[in-house]
Amino acid sequence: MRPVNIVLMGFGHVGKAFARLILEKRELCRERYGIDLTLKAIFRSKGGRFSRHRSDLTDIVETMAAGAPDCPAWNLNLSLDEVFSELEPGVLVECTPTDLTKGEPGLGNIREALAWKWHIAAASKGALVLRFKELMDQAKTNGVQIKFSGATAAALPTLDVGTISLAGAEILGIEGILTGVTNLILTRMEEGGTFKEALKEAQDRGIAEPDPSLDIDGWDSACKIQLISNAVAGTEFVLSDIVLEGIGSVTPEDIQKTKKEGRVLKLLGRLVREGGKSRAEVRLTAIGKDHPLFHVSGTNKAITYFTDTMGYITVSGGKSDPRGTAAALLKDIINIYPRG
Amino acid sequence: MRPVNIVLMGFGHVGKAFARLILEKRELCRERYGIDLTLKAIFRSKGGRFSRHRSDLTDIVETMAAGAPDCPAWNLNLSLDEVFSELEPGVLVECTPTDLTKGEPGLGNIREALAWKWHIAAASKGALVLRFKELMDQAKTNGVQIKFSGATAAALPTLDVGTISLAGAEILGIEGILTGVTNLILTRMEEGGTFKEALKEAQDRGIAEPDPSLDIDGWDSACKIQLISNAVAGTEFVLSDIVLEGIGSVTPEDIQKTKKEGRVLKLLGRLVREGGKSRAEVRLTAIGKDHPLFHVSGTNKAITYFTDTMGYITVSGGKSDPRGTAAALLKDIINIYPRG
Repeated sequence: MRPVNIVLMGFGHVGKAFARLILEKRELCRERYGIDLTLKAIFRSKGGRFSRHRSDLTDIVETMAAGAPDCPAWNLNLSLDEVFSELEPGVLVECTPTDLTKGEPGLGNIREALAWKWHIAAASKGALVLRFKELMDQAKTNGVQIKFSGATAAALPTLDVGTISLAGAEILGIEGILTGVTNLILTRMEEGGTFKEALKEAQDRGIAEPDPSLDIDGWDSACKIQLISNAVAGTEFVLSDIVLEGIGSVTPEDIQKTKKEGRVLKLLGRLVREGGKSRAEVRLTAIGKDHPLFHVSGTNKAITYFTDTMGYITVSGGKSDPRGTAAALLKDIINIYPRG
Repeated sequence: MRPVNIVLMGFGHVGKAFARLILEKRELCRERYGIDLTLKAIFRSKGGRFSRHRSDLTDIVETMAAGAPDCPAWNLNLSLDEVFSELEPGVLVECTPTDLTKGEPGLGNIREALAWKWHIAAASKGALVLRFKELMDQAKTNGVQIKFSGATAAALPTLDVGTISLAGAEILGIEGILTGVTNLILTRMEEGGTFKEALKEAQDRGIAEPDPSLDIDGWDSACKIQLISNAVAGTEFVLSDIVLEGIGSVTPEDIQKTKKEGRVLKLLGRLVREGGKSRAEVRLTAIGKDHPLFHVSGTNKAITYFTDTMGYITVSGGKSDPRGTAAALLKDIINIYPRG
């Protein structure tokens, strides 16, 4: 049995779901994968908890489960440095809010963890989209891994399929429906609804942020196609390389015109390789029945890889809620440690 | 750079495609994965070739490429034992014809290779469906791996997704369209054709055997769902556990009746888990628009995993030709060796 220390950064919906999940799955991880996952510290926006001597922070998870509004005794002076200095290196789980300007607080957290030789499992995107190469190089230098399934469509296995299932193949192109909210809005408009109604539905269902502009304007898809391209196809895109388009200006007339042609409008994240050059983009694209993403509707996401030897391979589905993202983080942690 | 010796068993369509592919991909494997794949021996039904001192058997591949009917100098007395005794262990690539009665010659080849501590990448199914647990145990004892993507829908990444992308999740059920020929026939009948015409098309296109009964009667799907269940969900099915049904008795009337109900008939390989028990079966099933496999038509294959934490995940596509199978073998070989 290999003990694996976990430090969790961020305690919002995803962080809480992750804390619950590793408690729920602890026994399974011991039995099936030979790893004993122990949540040793949790940091939230203000303060943290560090379980130096006890085996786990189960009290926090149990307090949440009991419906209590908060758990007492968050330590406002706890530092990440202090935690790392007292623990064997394990996995830092990054679930802080995504910031696309400076990448903080994720960037600082990840840099510090890598310096202490901790592996990373990230659900937040900011640090990776802004400093991809720098962080990957730092991980390599320190002999640890950065996994980010949680930041690239979560339970939809975009990275595993691209790097493991397509090992040895050339990626000729990638096309993905990578944002659930925009796909739901386009689907509802195709069914005859308006943009506003569809957006309200997404917000009511809790899948769109109160400020949904990161999704609507294409930034969420742009981050994902950038990270997927870099990880799978060896590109070194930064976020500003991605040419992007949102769905804010789509009219019911656009939708109906496309529908009459037997096609549907989709917001696609794409990697295009032409004449030895690669570019990544997010584009509103009309696709026909023969396209592998034609039937991907509602909040569903999917990605298609076009290859030289295996034809094309499409993966679709995967829960988009916090529990699905937590499951993607857990999967990444399990796959960091080779099975004996 | 890690040298990896390859011994290829079987030199039919898949074996030849594999020999071509590793020559084509040799440089890429060196650069991207740090492994140097060297084809040291090839065995066909009569005789073999063993390249003791030269770096490769490129002459055979080049002779094939030049369109020559055969390559000279196959050694009728060459034994696998002789080859293993002179080489550092690498990967045995099993591409001999599938035999579901005795599993030979694959079973003998695999047993011998495991005893010599060689890893296995298999495209043939016989040995695995008949002796799954015995062979897996032998591999474990000898500290080597058996990979069989090539035997479980080839370029469609059924096993990778099930074992790696769903790590930590419980598999609640599996449903797959796992045989291209039967799906093509059902699709053509839905379009108004007859069984006979559709089968002839499959034979003319070279995707059905002259004796297509293994596909038509459901055996091909049964082998695949058995192996996938065992690998992904920890079952220990043998082939005789699988309740199976073929498509031989489907009538145009059955098809049209289902169509009128807005559904389609599909031959599904399924793992069903109910009340703590698991069973695997191959069943002709009418599925509706909401089913993730509804739109999988023609020679396409796909598989859906239903999970407790990630919702359901569907993978579809992947070439079914010998090159696609060769690419699946290559992928398995690459993934045997951890990347540095």
